[in-house]
Amino acid sequence: MYRERQGKVRDYLTREHLDCAVIQDTEGRRNSSLFYLSGMPLDALLFVLKADKSILVPWDVILANRLADVTGILPYNDFDRQSVKAIQSVLEMEGLASGTIELPSALPHPLFRQLTAALPGASLICREEGIDDELLLLRSLKDETEQEIYREASEITNTLLDDLETGLMERTILTETEIALFIEKRARGMGCEGTGFETIAAGPGRSFGIHAYPAYTGASISVPGFTIVDFGVKLKGYTTDVTLTVAAGPLSDNQKKMCSAVEDAYTLASGLLSPGKAVTDIAEAVDGLFEERGFFMPHSLGHGIGLDAHETPILKSGVTRDNILKEGMIVTLEPGLYDEHGGGVRLENDFLITREGAEPLTTSRILYVPLKGRTQSTLLP
Amino acid sequence: MYRERQGKVRDYLTREHLDCAVIQDTEGRRNSSLFYLSGMPLDALLFVLKADKSILVPWDVILANRLADVTGILPYNDFDRQSVKAIQSVLEMEGLASGTIELPSALPHPLFRQLTAALPGASLICREEGIDDELLLLRSLKDETEQEIYREASEITNTLLDDLETGLMERTILTETEIALFIEKRARGMGCEGTGFETIAAGPGRSFGIHAYPAYTGASISVPGFTIVDFGVKLKGYTTDVTLTVAAGPLSDNQKKMCSAVEDAYTLASGLLSPGKAVTDIAEAVDGLFEERGFFMPHSLGHGIGLDAHETPILKSGVTRDNILKEGMIVTLEPGLYDEHGGGVRLENDFLITREGAEPLTTSRILYVPLKGRTQSTLLP
Repeated sequence: MYRERQGKVRDYLTREHLDCAVIQDTEGRRNSSLFYLSGMPLDALLFVLKADKSILVPWDVILANRLADVTGILPYNDFDRQSVKAIQSVLEMEGLASGTIELPSALPHPLFRQLTAALPGASLICREEGIDDELLLLRSLKDETEQEIYREASEITNTLLDDLETGLMERTILTETEIALFIEKRARGMGCEGTGFETIAAGPGRSFGIHAYPAYTGASISVPGFTIVDFGVKLKGYTTDVTLTVAAGPLSDNQKKMCSAVEDAYTLASGLLSPGKAVTDIAEAVDGLFEERGFFMPHSLGHGIGLDAHETPILKSGVTRDNILKEGMIVTLEPGLYDEHGGGVRLENDFLITREGAEPLTTSRILYVPLKGRTQSTLLP
Repeated sequence: MYRERQGKVRDYLTREHLDCAVIQDTEGRRNSSLFYLSGMPLDALLFVLKADKSILVPWDVILANRLADVTGILPYNDFDRQSVKAIQSVLEMEGLASGTIELPSALPHPLFRQLTAALPGASLICREEGIDDELLLLRSLKDETEQEIYREASEITNTLLDDLETGLMERTILTETEIALFIEKRARGMGCEGTGFETIAAGPGRSFGIHAYPAYTGASISVPGFTIVDFGVKLKGYTTDVTLTVAAGPLSDNQKKMCSAVEDAYTLASGLLSPGKAVTDIAEAVDGLFEERGFFMPHSLGHGIGLDAHETPILKSGVTRDNILKEGMIVTLEPGLYDEHGGGVRLENDFLITREGAEPLTTSRILYVPLKGRTQSTLLP
């Protein structure tokens, strides 16, 4: 599988007249394409050469020997753990000191300058719409194995959502921390590596934040208002991403309007998901709906998911590239509204783009909880 | 506090003849200096101007209004959530389109090029040893308030280490996941925001990895060999960082030699910690000790801690800058050895550099556990 993916990079190299592409994952600049291409999860440089070679320079050689599928491994320690030195040396060793080399698009400008000085004979390319973008596009189209993983991960997510609802209803889960640790533990208990990103559990006092900080605290959630729970489970490297809002009544008129607007936006957007559709069109339809109701959503409508929680495509208005939905993409929709006083409400689920339209994978919802009295859960289509 | 820190950036601007410095935290390029300077934890651009102004451009305006201490806030949405557009616009609004501006050192080369085109009249500076380095140096010297936080965080860490030992001994903690979730829950129960980074709990089957992947699994730890537990608690933004190794006997001769070497390296290094000392000298002394015994440590000896788990200074051999210990620094020592078959052993604690030497803050250890029989814990000085 990894060798096949490296082959696709080689196709790209041929198309673009390049001798080598360098992919990097390092602290501060994480890049899941390293794992996607080599099986090595983190902390390494990967050189994919037009000649049939892939060379990994990992920080942890033992881990690389176990996990990576490449043609050669050279310890990062051999280059004093300095990426400029490693890139220069490997290219020289491979006779590419005067080759055409594409560097990571996230390479900091000062390092680019150092490499230019270290490799005066090479043509060094570092661009936004280059190899890393190409890899994001490849990663956005999930093959059958990846779709199978997503079906399994979604089932676990849905079980977890149901269990969470039960815990909230039966009042065995009472604080933000209890929500987050319940999810973490249950996910691992069901065979996941854990959660795909830090779970956000923000009770009525803090749900005004798009991404609450800290992500969760010891605060009680048993008070009127909105509690946002945003989480994903990580299975075989891939993460789901859902948001449940608990709306504990009595709600104010404005809070009720916020909920209706979010639910209507969600229904509108999910009806528009289909291959060939421009994501800007969907995002603009939702922006329009919110504007009509006097609201404004301060973030994107949704995004691809995969090895990262945020991947291509980004569903937002005004973007000009990578903006057509394609069969095999898995994207989230997450309309949300936030009020400094009334708190925040967000509803997020994951969808597989199919040949005809889109298939919902997860079943999150806005959970209406009258603090005294009957309980009602709306499960949106 | 934040305004005072912004003042120090202004001193830097004057010294370096700059009109403005831009600090950024964004997904993929996290930078705790944003929080250090403004109180805004994440997802924003900060412009510190030589003129007495600090302008924040946050993604989440509501959160910024609550948390940030700056002279002005402009929504990132006003600039279509595009950092090039935001930087260009703010500089133009402030009359700095032909000023001398320092950009983030981690700015990707393609964005640097876009900014150069967008601001043809400006002198744009983007360098490794610039504003971000200056901020790392400022952050490395902990003031009294920060030291007080560290005393409190260390006390919690030490309690947690003792409780963890009890749980392991009484066999109420039996798997990697149980270790990790025990730490997460206890840390929050004792008033922390949580853990400072993803806890690594790697049992004998996986401790050969420097940073095991996944960080923890459902695997049992009740088998002979080394289990590495690497964690930190996060209190008021600051993280501790300790590693406990459980050495469950019977151990092989090589495993015993690894333990002795790590303990001796730790004792050697902690005796050398003092202000004015070059970190390279300490790291090289440890490298020498390991070499004498026929071992090799594949990572740095230690590092500063603070808002991030890895901060300036890095204690490793061969570095040439930021390499003198100073009073007020808080650093870890973490000698470790890894064997593909025998597993890994690492011992890590945190130290405050004082006027005379160094004060150990945490009390982690190698925990020797004969699988049958008496239990003995070595608590190193």
